[in-house]
Amino acid sequence: MPILVMKFGGTSVADLARIRNAAGKVAEEVARGNDVIVIVSAMAGRTNELVGWVDGIAPLHDAREYDAVVSSGENITAGLMALTLQDMDIPARSWQGWQVPLRTSSAHGAARILDIPRDNLDAKFAEGMKVAVVAGFQGISPEGRITTLGRGGSDTTAVAFAAAFDAVRCDIYTDVDGVYTADPRICDGARRLDRIAFEEMLELASLGAKVLQTRSVELAMRYKVPLRVLSSFEQTDETSGTVVCDEEETMESRVVSGVAHSRDEAKITLLSVADRPGIAAAIFGPLAEAGVNVDMIVQNISEDGRTDMTFSCPVGQLERARKAMTDARDRGDFRFVELVTDTGVAKVSVVGIGMRSHAGVAARMFQALAREGINIKVITTSEIKISVLIDRKYMELAVQALHDAFELDKIP
Amino acid sequence: MPILVMKFGGTSVADLARIRNAAGKVAEEVARGNDVIVIVSAMAGRTNELVGWVDGIAPLHDAREYDAVVSSGENITAGLMALTLQDMDIPARSWQGWQVPLRTSSAHGAARILDIPRDNLDAKFAEGMKVAVVAGFQGISPEGRITTLGRGGSDTTAVAFAAAFDAVRCDIYTDVDGVYTADPRICDGARRLDRIAFEEMLELASLGAKVLQTRSVELAMRYKVPLRVLSSFEQTDETSGTVVCDEEETMESRVVSGVAHSRDEAKITLLSVADRPGIAAAIFGPLAEAGVNVDMIVQNISEDGRTDMTFSCPVGQLERARKAMTDARDRGDFRFVELVTDTGVAKVSVVGIGMRSHAGVAARMFQALAREGINIKVITTSEIKISVLIDRKYMELAVQALHDAFELDKIP
Repeated sequence: MPILVMKFGGTSVADLARIRNAAGKVAEEVARGNDVIVIVSAMAGRTNELVGWVDGIAPLHDAREYDAVVSSGENITAGLMALTLQDMDIPARSWQGWQVPLRTSSAHGAARILDIPRDNLDAKFAEGMKVAVVAGFQGISPEGRITTLGRGGSDTTAVAFAAAFDAVRCDIYTDVDGVYTADPRICDGARRLDRIAFEEMLELASLGAKVLQTRSVELAMRYKVPLRVLSSFEQTDETSGTVVCDEEETMESRVVSGVAHSRDEAKITLLSVADRPGIAAAIFGPLAEAGVNVDMIVQNISEDGRTDMTFSCPVGQLERARKAMTDARDRGDFRFVELVTDTGVAKVSVVGIGMRSHAGVAARMFQALAREGINIKVITTSEIKISVLIDRKYMELAVQALHDAFELDKIP
Repeated sequence: MPILVMKFGGTSVADLARIRNAAGKVAEEVARGNDVIVIVSAMAGRTNELVGWVDGIAPLHDAREYDAVVSSGENITAGLMALTLQDMDIPARSWQGWQVPLRTSSAHGAARILDIPRDNLDAKFAEGMKVAVVAGFQGISPEGRITTLGRGGSDTTAVAFAAAFDAVRCDIYTDVDGVYTADPRICDGARRLDRIAFEEMLELASLGAKVLQTRSVELAMRYKVPLRVLSSFEQTDETSGTVVCDEEETMESRVVSGVAHSRDEAKITLLSVADRPGIAAAIFGPLAEAGVNVDMIVQNISEDGRTDMTFSCPVGQLERARKAMTDARDRGDFRFVELVTDTGVAKVSVVGIGMRSHAGVAARMFQALAREGINIKVITTSEIKISVLIDRKYMELAVQALHDAFELDKIP
């Protein structure tokens, strides 16, 4: 029996009516002859509520307890979804992470998936279960504690199950109907893409396009899991949504595929750092240990043996980053005169596989921003992406200007 | 190291401030040199919310999924309590039922506790853990599914842990400061009891006095667990609350100790049942199988080989009872002409160990109700209790009349 993985995000299961709507989509796939593994997120708002409580107790908390608390949201949805399917006469049951078991590392709050043994689910499928509803985002550590995979980990759960069970497809149902050339809420003319390459999706995801989580795309790329993003709020069929696939399978060819933005960025500058060999390792080692996702890095030209070091990270990790830096200074790892933060910045990026073979993309991007009088604070580039950090107030303007400059509203 | 069990009910952990307050009480006991097992309920309102969702999907639902969903409330509190204790520099961690493990039967929704192996908690206590925060109300079945012990099961969890770990005491913190002669919210002159016998508490609990759950009192009586009910909202010390103990240890002696009431009763009458040997078994067998807690039973005098059978059960089980009865009739187990229900009834009871040796309690009770013009619909008695079913609108009046008649406002 072919196995299909279907994942429903928080807004797709926000209340009983939406859970019933999602269950209807599962029922359609069962009627088509599939055994289905459904991965569910917490009902919209739940996880934030739980996180709020944990943060209300102590900003620096035991990640094991954090995981035990926040994982409960997905458990609730899994049970409710199983009940809804049963009410539609579909043999279904819920599975919490430890019941599958989805084995992970002990890195609480951001655990890595180690293994998903098929035995338990396979046995139940053999007994007649048609749908396994699995609580996303969570697993069990070697110590028997509950772990979570980090924000958006339900996408990763879905792809991991698709890989482990050789699924015919992994459908990610969400509140948008696919991947767009830019966020249509802030950009006129933004257009849904029928197909997009894994690499492009990866850049878009890591840049804050909230359609798919980075790790889930990486995993899908590695295990060649056919991934599809589609809306849980519309009638859908075989042609709906955006398929994320290998580069060769993408039909359209263009230099730039999309414009991404990320609102919640923070910029940190260490002023007057003693510049010596190994200074970057001394700075970014402790940041990595503290779990800070450093994104862009800029080092000024050194003067008199001293330099300024600037980097960006998510706003939510700013305090952790500040503590890691001041602790390292207090330990004598390195010295700096002052730590300056800027929480009023946003990142805007253009992404496209075509950049590999086309020159002049950066120049076209900077010109478009200059025409709007937008100052660029930090620049980073990769093979298929150019990102800039700008004042947050210009973010929407920049996205629109770039979308227009690269004529993304037109079908190539 | 002596082990103390402390249980906090839903209102005692309703928000972060209350969890912190409860944690303060735990900290006091740790400071006195105890290792503590804390049993927590779901934050007030949570379980109802979860049950509401489950009921919103299907009134007759898979109890295994119900358990998976509703048990999440206690998990959240356990994590938050552990974090709060850690923030007070007390080594604490949370334990979900399956992690302990608290092994139960597979009777989902009303599982029986089978075993609580000490190994896991003992090992952590040996490593320096001072407080184990255990999610109440839940366990794990032999099939590896999550079970719940039924409403109020956190009290039972607490007593079971106290028995398994030879606890010096089991303190039940709740929103009242002890056991009263009647519910002070509806009865003037209601008075807190310093001590009460297990047997009396058992009757009060089974009668709907919501201070302690019946099963928890049974368990405490069987394992001689010293039980104390006290308020989590007041400064408490060694003399606070009401101690539930063996009859010999109760100090006061009186005929009637308290007046209890239960609002959510339903009365069901099967009209014109063919009266034959085995008819009671034919009726109450299916009700037991359907999980209906039949309370009072009255059978009318038989006429022409036919009789009326009346029984009461909680309002929430009325539909299940009706279905069990009509199903049994449809199967041909027995016949009746009509099934009549009355959901407008309440139960009022007087309880006291002294009744065993004092006659005339029933007469005094019926006279008091008659003086107020309250009609009695059903009567049942036990060795230390007399209960009557009356119109719900007279419930408060009846409680006050009985409290006055037995002079329970006076210290004996």
